[in-house]
Amino acid sequence: MAETMARHTSSKPFGIVIHGGAGTITRSQITPEQEAEYRETLIEALEAGYAILEHNGCSLDAVQKAINIMEDSPLFNAGKGAVFTFDGKNEQDACIMDGGTLETGAVAAVRRIKNPVDLARLVMEKTEHVLLIGEGAETFAELQGMKLVDADYFYTDRRWQQYQRAKKNEEGQQTFLDHDKTLGTVGAVALDRDGNLAAGTSSGGMTNKRFGRVGDSASNAASTYANNNTCAVSTTGHGEYFIRAVTAYDIHAMMEYKGLSLKEAVHTAIHNKLSALGGTGGLVAIDSKGNFTWSFNTEGMYRGHFMFENEPIVKIYEE
Amino acid sequence: MAETMARHTSSKPFGIVIHGGAGTITRSQITPEQEAEYRETLIEALEAGYAILEHNGCSLDAVQKAINIMEDSPLFNAGKGAVFTFDGKNEQDACIMDGGTLETGAVAAVRRIKNPVDLARLVMEKTEHVLLIGEGAETFAELQGMKLVDADYFYTDRRWQQYQRAKKNEEGQQTFLDHDKTLGTVGAVALDRDGNLAAGTSSGGMTNKRFGRVGDSASNAASTYANNNTCAVSTTGHGEYFIRAVTAYDIHAMMEYKGLSLKEAVHTAIHNKLSALGGTGGLVAIDSKGNFTWSFNTEGMYRGHFMFENEPIVKIYEE
Repeated sequence: MAETMARHTSSKPFGIVIHGGAGTITRSQITPEQEAEYRETLIEALEAGYAILEHNGCSLDAVQKAINIMEDSPLFNAGKGAVFTFDGKNEQDACIMDGGTLETGAVAAVRRIKNPVDLARLVMEKTEHVLLIGEGAETFAELQGMKLVDADYFYTDRRWQQYQRAKKNEEGQQTFLDHDKTLGTVGAVALDRDGNLAAGTSSGGMTNKRFGRVGDSASNAASTYANNNTCAVSTTGHGEYFIRAVTAYDIHAMMEYKGLSLKEAVHTAIHNKLSALGGTGGLVAIDSKGNFTWSFNTEGMYRGHFMFENEPIVKIYEE
Repeated sequence: MAETMARHTSSKPFGIVIHGGAGTITRSQITPEQEAEYRETLIEALEAGYAILEHNGCSLDAVQKAINIMEDSPLFNAGKGAVFTFDGKNEQDACIMDGGTLETGAVAAVRRIKNPVDLARLVMEKTEHVLLIGEGAETFAELQGMKLVDADYFYTDRRWQQYQRAKKNEEGQQTFLDHDKTLGTVGAVALDRDGNLAAGTSSGGMTNKRFGRVGDSASNAASTYANNNTCAVSTTGHGEYFIRAVTAYDIHAMMEYKGLSLKEAVHTAIHNKLSALGGTGGLVAIDSKGNFTWSFNTEGMYRGHFMFENEPIVKIYEE
């Protein structure tokens, strides 16, 4: 009986789903070499997260590790590849949530944190707070023994050029947006063998952003929700619309209160609600039974999944 | 027929409900003089908001005006009466939401804004963003023609003494909390004659807060939600729990997806969900039909309502 139980436990579904941003991503805009780089990094992130789950690690660790790999890559708008603000800085937001305890942590507008999602987790686990911002959050990081990086760690030529183009195009407007400016937020959701869900998101925000703008990536309700009763969600796109629609929590609520399936709730959130507000973007999600899905109303979304008894799968364009 | 329609329109329900904080409020702790001051200011806020609604003004204006009166009073932990941070500053958060458009604006960690809810409204109406923080938000305020106040405008002896007591009690702990430290966030919800709902919240946060801590008052999902289809909500209390429970949006979701009444949804949010997480606080709410309610799991909550064809009512203690 014990053996049967053990086998049963070990065959419980588990897996991880990730994204690296949604936006104007079409075959004509990406060279085969660039595409190969994206695919390689997404696979690396999936494999790192999956390895943790396979060895009975927790979903929070898997989510964090997968995000770290994307944060450390210059390809994505998070960590090393973060976009530049109006003042030529890199200011990042991140959030993580534990679906078992409903605890969550977040940081906003941090400038010297190599892996903002790690700091979000420290906020969750080492404080009574949920959201710490700016220099205060960095002081907390140092007190926790985290080594701050120099601000120029985040410099990448690609993002600097994007910033220069944004400044040139601005022509006196205080703010403007295009897909290119927001593309590349990263995130992950996972279910572990113990049935615990977790979600995380990390983002450099919007190129040329100003006035201390913070997007959805610092919000457990907008971008990053996990609840073992229902699902885990991580979003990417034009953050203001996800804040207004409370997208991540809304998917949970539609499952919990209306009995929608994960797929139905995700489809409604993106193609009915977000689109109706005029928002663009996408998300990845997984439920407590191991069902997973993604959805986006943009041309493409960097994304992938690696589920128990399957191979890692990466996709970029529309299906 | 036109006359009938006009009469019908003019007798549509409208009104405003406000709060000035929930916590350890008992008759033994408040002198009759203090109680009279609270009642007087709450009545003043209700009357100012109601006057706008009565003259066919919009619910956003009514909410903002009522909050301004509480922000300008030293009695409440918002604006003039804001609590002190660990560094002896006053750092405030605010949010406002329009139930007709689902637009929302918020500010966090602002130090030189006399009425933070006014700046939240400017963020909503004059930018493509939802949340601006810190000095960036203040720069935006100046560009919008708002006059910044000196930081010492916010000094009140009562809050300074509270801060000194908190520092003394801290005894080496990085963070700690008691009801007294968070008491006094203000908020309002209103329904206007056109059937538009609005909600707003403004808060000095938590005495002795540190590391750039931001609470629920800067979040449309946690503290301040309005949707003409359902309700408008403003919360007060230990903000981290409202963020984790996504309380304001959750009340909307329970009404929209489960068909709960306002009263049922509010009761569930406070007495089941918030209490289960260990959170303390309360909220005021109004629905699109003009039903209104409040709820709290603390000893008391400063609160009041002023509804069409009624007198303004103010309450402080448990009923």
